[in-house]
Amino acid sequence: MAAGSIGEFELIARVFAPLAADGALGLTDDAAFYRPRPGRDLVLTKDEVVSGVHFFADDPWDAVARKALRVNLSDLAAKGAVPVGYLLALGLPKGFTVEEIDALGAGLAADQATYGISLYGGDTVRSPAGLTLSVTAIGEVKEGGMVRRGGAKAGDVIVVTGTIGDAALGLALRLDAALATRLGLSDAHRDYLLDRYLLPRPRGALAAAVADHASGGMDISDGLVGDLGKMAAASGVAIEIDADRVPLSEAAQAAVTSDPHLLATALTGGDDYELALSMPEAEAAAFLAAADAAGIGAAVIGRVSSGECASVRGDHPALADLGAGSYRHF
Amino acid sequence: MAAGSIGEFELIARVFAPLAADGALGLTDDAAFYRPRPGRDLVLTKDEVVSGVHFFADDPWDAVARKALRVNLSDLAAKGAVPVGYLLALGLPKGFTVEEIDALGAGLAADQATYGISLYGGDTVRSPAGLTLSVTAIGEVKEGGMVRRGGAKAGDVIVVTGTIGDAALGLALRLDAALATRLGLSDAHRDYLLDRYLLPRPRGALAAAVADHASGGMDISDGLVGDLGKMAAASGVAIEIDADRVPLSEAAQAAVTSDPHLLATALTGGDDYELALSMPEAEAAAFLAAADAAGIGAAVIGRVSSGECASVRGDHPALADLGAGSYRHF
Repeated sequence: MAAGSIGEFELIARVFAPLAADGALGLTDDAAFYRPRPGRDLVLTKDEVVSGVHFFADDPWDAVARKALRVNLSDLAAKGAVPVGYLLALGLPKGFTVEEIDALGAGLAADQATYGISLYGGDTVRSPAGLTLSVTAIGEVKEGGMVRRGGAKAGDVIVVTGTIGDAALGLALRLDAALATRLGLSDAHRDYLLDRYLLPRPRGALAAAVADHASGGMDISDGLVGDLGKMAAASGVAIEIDADRVPLSEAAQAAVTSDPHLLATALTGGDDYELALSMPEAEAAAFLAAADAAGIGAAVIGRVSSGECASVRGDHPALADLGAGSYRHF
Repeated sequence: MAAGSIGEFELIARVFAPLAADGALGLTDDAAFYRPRPGRDLVLTKDEVVSGVHFFADDPWDAVARKALRVNLSDLAAKGAVPVGYLLALGLPKGFTVEEIDALGAGLAADQATYGISLYGGDTVRSPAGLTLSVTAIGEVKEGGMVRRGGAKAGDVIVVTGTIGDAALGLALRLDAALATRLGLSDAHRDYLLDRYLLPRPRGALAAAVADHASGGMDISDGLVGDLGKMAAASGVAIEIDADRVPLSEAAQAAVTSDPHLLATALTGGDDYELALSMPEAEAAAFLAAADAAGIGAAVIGRVSSGECASVRGDHPALADLGAGSYRHF
């Protein structure tokens, strides 16, 4: 069905009203209300994704919608916050189709069910360039309980969830269709990495464990080494990680084995949406157990000490690409 | 100073960190926290403005920033909500200058002071087309106290704040540089109308009075008649207004006197950002007194009855332009 055949009101009624929270009144009002639970702080975050900048213009709209939502839910998970809901400003390009907008709605609906959230409102505007999605996500923590980026303390260990570098390698494969063959990757490994780029897996299942155990935390969106540099700067500490302890997926390991310099891509590339956490060493076992129980996994990869930088130890040729094994983000 | 000479981190530190709420931690974290006051509901709204769609590409960035904020604050005022803060996703076009971004920050800072709000976070992205601002605004009402669009009841009166149609006439003047001369408008009247289009005046000063007196409410953003049609539909009532009672500014009155058909522009054009409220007749005097005390003014312009449409009474040639005096929005 052609784009011009659906107006804003029909769009809202068809696609978005079924996604609305109770307080959003079927999206027929100017605003929504939300009644916070006593003894909780709200956690607020806002990330926008833009066609041609944060995703490819030919990515399917259900995946784009889920990515927009998930990059925000990833921030909440890193803060130890349980997600509640979100608002969405949608910039629609000329010539969009009803099939595309239905796919977008289906992607949001699927993720709302997965993450237990609902829609608190938003806006639909014309976008002169391509599709844009600006999401504001709302979560809850116990009063005073938001885990901060600047909370790492000397003596803590550094823990990451899941596996690192998959999305950056997936992006490299997406940008260079011949790369998978040159690396000798299996189809399964190639598809795994491509999918990890397309669709983040926010670690909301670990929000309670983050709140219980982490002293500091952030999600890894701009690359592990650079993001740890931000954590070190925000915390006023030094962070040193061991390249050999950074967990790689089988697929990423296969790529790095084939071309050792891709380790630098894995350690510095963006879009992991895993969690980087600091915690007292005594808390690590319990957090790792929670991560294993959730089927996500986690690993201790380094330590926090007094000082003011982030560095990577290891005997890998790729580490030279980071500048003598150390990467300064600032 | 050229655009490329300022990076994202410098931009945040220079322009946005000084605007941050306490809970936003200097914008050095992934998220902000907000501790709701006991016994309050939050009111959430999100409106985006896009260059070339909601404002002119050559509008000054301080005015654009204030407009983006104010269209959201207008929604909160209509809900009877006291504003608390906002999040901002900023889409920056190639080639922006540091002077422009400083102007944007200055506009936000001025309005934060005016409206008693602060910044709870956001995002800065590249925008392939022009400047975009996606704002999520947060306000507070007493628990259960959000004034709803669907709250109008048969027997209520309809009240509007301020004056109607100024912004639509200002837009007409902006689009047709010769119009002011053809209408014989004074420079002061022309400038007044242009400014009313450029810069909305959200009626947050009346939020408490709205909460105390209104049964239903919305802000007038898409034109008085159309928006009252939405209120009638959401409330399941009929709304009839009297064209002669709709308050016009001196400047708008001068324009309509010169060309009576411009009354249709005033009654149906957008961007008023005044409030349209329903309330029991017994409450109207107190609300009007509050609006006068705030220097905003308000007027009773019509009535609510059982039925299901919005109509305009009056003996004006322009009303024929609305379709036999009645304008159906749906």
